[in-house]
Amino acid sequence: MSPGERLINAITLEYYQRIGILEKNAAPLHTTATERGETMGNRLEEFREYRTRMNDRIFKIDHLGIKRFFNLDTTAYNDGALDGKTKELLGLAASAVLRCNDCIDYHLLQCVEAGWKDEELYDALNVSLIVGGSIVIPHLRHAVETIDLLRAEKAGSE
Amino acid sequence: MSPGERLINAITLEYYQRIGILEKNAAPLHTTATERGETMGNRLEEFREYRTRMNDRIFKIDHLGIKRFFNLDTTAYNDGALDGKTKELLGLAASAVLRCNDCIDYHLLQCVEAGWKDEELYDALNVSLIVGGSIVIPHLRHAVETIDLLRAEKAGSE
Amino acid sequence: MSPGERLINAITLEYYQRIGILEKNAAPLHTTATERGETMGNRLEEFREYRTRMNDRIFKIDHLGIKRFFNLDTTAYNDGALDGKTKELLGLAASAVLRCNDCIDYHLLQCVEAGWKDEELYDALNVSLIVGGSIVIPHLRHAVETIDLLRAEKAGSE
Amino acid sequence: MSPGERLINAITLEYYQRIGILEKNAAPLHTTATERGETMGNRLEEFREYRTRMNDRIFKIDHLGIKRFFNLDTTAYNDGALDGKTKELLGLAASAVLRCNDCIDYHLLQCVEAGWKDEELYDALNVSLIVGGSIVIPHLRHAVETIDLLRAEKAGSE
Amino acid sequence: MSPGERLINAITLEYYQRIGILEKNAAPLHTTATERGETMGNRLEEFREYRTRMNDRIFKIDHLGIKRFFNLDTTAYNDGALDGKTKELLGLAASAVLRCNDCIDYHLLQCVEAGWKDEELYDALNVSLIVGGSIVIPHLRHAVETIDLLRAEKAGSE
Amino acid sequence: MSPGERLINAITLEYYQRIGILEKNAAPLHTTATERGETMGNRLEEFREYRTRMNDRIFKIDHLGIKRFFNLDTTAYNDGALDGKTKELLGLAASAVLRCNDCIDYHLLQCVEAGWKDEELYDALNVSLIVGGSIVIPHLRHAVETIDLLRAEKAGSE
Repeated sequence: MSPGERLINAITLEYYQRIGILEKNAAPLHTTATERGETMGNRLEEFREYRTRMNDRIFKIDHLGIKRFFNLDTTAYNDGALDGKTKELLGLAASAVLRCNDCIDYHLLQCVEAGWKDEELYDALNVSLIVGGSIVIPHLRHAVETIDLLRAEKAGSE
Repeated sequence: MSPGERLINAITLEYYQRIGILEKNAAPLHTTATERGETMGNRLEEFREYRTRMNDRIFKIDHLGIKRFFNLDTTAYNDGALDGKTKELLGLAASAVLRCNDCIDYHLLQCVEAGWKDEELYDALNVSLIVGGSIVIPHLRHAVETIDLLRAEKAGSE
Repeated sequence: MSPGERLINAITLEYYQRIGILEKNAAPLHTTATERGETMGNRLEEFREYRTRMNDRIFKIDHLGIKRFFNLDTTAYNDGALDGKTKELLGLAASAVLRCNDCIDYHLLQCVEAGWKDEELYDALNVSLIVGGSIVIPHLRHAVETIDLLRAEKAGSE
Repeated sequence: MSPGERLINAITLEYYQRIGILEKNAAPLHTTATERGETMGNRLEEFREYRTRMNDRIFKIDHLGIKRFFNLDTTAYNDGALDGKTKELLGLAASAVLRCNDCIDYHLLQCVEAGWKDEELYDALNVSLIVGGSIVIPHLRHAVETIDLLRAEKAGSE
Repeated sequence: MSPGERLINAITLEYYQRIGILEKNAAPLHTTATERGETMGNRLEEFREYRTRMNDRIFKIDHLGIKRFFNLDTTAYNDGALDGKTKELLGLAASAVLRCNDCIDYHLLQCVEAGWKDEELYDALNVSLIVGGSIVIPHLRHAVETIDLLRAEKAGSE
Repeated sequence: MSPGERLINAITLEYYQRIGILEKNAAPLHTTATERGETMGNRLEEFREYRTRMNDRIFKIDHLGIKRFFNLDTTAYNDGALDGKTKELLGLAASAVLRCNDCIDYHLLQCVEAGWKDEELYDALNVSLIVGGSIVIPHLRHAVETIDLLRAEKAGSE
């Protein structure tokens, strides 16, 4: 966590405590696993923490339309006529051509969880590369790094 | 074929004959199956004919980079770490979120050929709808109509 | 309706009757008001008819996720913290920068219904033009023509 | 011009006359060169006519921001640090990756006018194809057909 | 400010001084409020400073077309047929569906300044979420965090 | 390099060594020139290093389709009907309207290498600004900063 990020945390922590979203004695937001004394931590973990924190914040907003959309988004990847595993791969391919790194990371997490192997993920990313062109390349780099980080995490936790 | 389209054909036919792409006695371009006295014809057939004609035209241009890209595009959907059937579905999902009707039609042709069932195609399109939002809806309408036309064609040819 | 469109209607009508979506004695799909002997008919009416027909078709598919999304899409423009009138204008601005003519037409129908005046719609479209650039211009042309058609319809029906 | 388009013209013509945009005895809108007894006419001519008619209509709206943007858009392709010819090619490449057929047609008209040769235009389109991927292919087909129509027109008028 | 950013500043500062854009004794670029001994500072402030610095730099380039576009962009949100407040909300909705965090932040600054309340901003963002789909979610998270930072700033400055 | 980035490096370094991509005694990834005791280093250098490292990683994946696409991408900018210098400018204009900072940086590196002058690059970016609208402005800021960094590097190395 950079000094700038630490500062954002300090500001929003105080604000969130004031408006009652967080307990007065809450731990600083955004502390990485490393700062909390754990051994494994990287940009994926920061992504997960940020995602969880902001999803919680959005949930607190209590906008019925937004909450229903989040719910619909989750159920779209459940088993149906297609199984969930296949649909996560569709989500990955769609995210890659739309060039959204956070979405790519999210679907890679789900794809690895669902059992897709690296070679299969590369083959799916190749489809996105051909459909979307060289403008996808920076996101291909990001995706390949994310796959490596996921495998490194897994290897580290075994 | 509308009068306007017939006119385009007349113009380009003459031009193509002059530059030697078509024989002097070539049939008018773009005639639909119906006009040629066949019983089945619809926008899918026009799409196939236009696609074939222009791909031939592009091939005649003989630009090495373009030809290689077309080749790479074809091989991307061959069996590999993922089978071709799965990759066609990825191509469909990517085309739908990028909102390209011609690409959707092309991948639907391939998907039906590869054996995907209607319910599975709808489930894939639902993923694209959730990822891409309501701006995808006009393309969902188009895709569902294309699936119906493909099934009607198949039923008609049996 | 062009001969080609008439043909599509004939094919899909027969198919829809066979699979039970339409009555055996249903009127041909896609007939315009003019063909049915009415005095007013234009591309807006064709758009409305196509939209209604395909939405009905999609509803028959009975995919829970798709139906819920359609429902969520409708409720997003209901009065809430912002009134529905304002939200229709947001939908128009978003559709224009995303360059979707069908979406522009739909939101213009709703905007005129909600009481936005032409000068206000032009001012909203100007924001979309500045945000989205000259690539939006063909859609600005389409939008201005749609506004004219809507006003002409209204004048004709008074 | 299809019957449907003829109808739109009739409706908008009447409306435009009523609001004073067109003279009472104006020729029907959208008549093609062919219908006016001229020998050459195609989708390019329809595009030019529609573009001119709607640009006139938009000019009549008299929105200062829109008019200034149109002006800025025109001057962007004037000779400057780069000559106008080069900038038209940039406009073509940008239009192709953004997948806008009308914009592609407009810039192709300007590029041919500026003296770019077919092989040079194909080479520029190849860059757009590589940058934008297979989703650009339908627009590549359109662009190549437009180049052929432009050359056929030129050959016909010589 | 991270060490990397500090380095960029040092390099560009030196360069800007050499080409005469900055005084020899100018303060280092990009110093945050915190580093200058002020109490409030966060990513919004960094965004404002970077935006101001680069807009100044672009202004120095003195390209007539770019300067006119910047001017047109500013005036597009002035009161007109629609009031400026409404147009800022349109700018926000358009920025969200086009998925540009910097543009979202800029329009949120303006929207809060114009008096839109949090619940109204969430309702506008919901329209963007429905129109643009789940690919908008990372930008929704960013937007909600920005709203919180803006409110925290305001609370801190009272 | 921030502490977080250092951590990613440590993790992936270890992982890459384990899977045999890097030697056991390899230098830490991502060290900037500054950290290696060199005098010039900035975000461009980090971009170049990251780009090289991940391209190497992707090359190791050995996916035939991906490798061929990378090859095709490189050759697209070679001299052909258009010279390579012109095609790099097309790549820049396309990258700017597609709003990809990494792609903009890459093509700016190539454009400066090819001999384009600052005023010419600004004129090309102005075309992208007009075509793509205000949503391009954050990328215009980025591009102008990159040009300054490139000139500062060059001045520093002379």
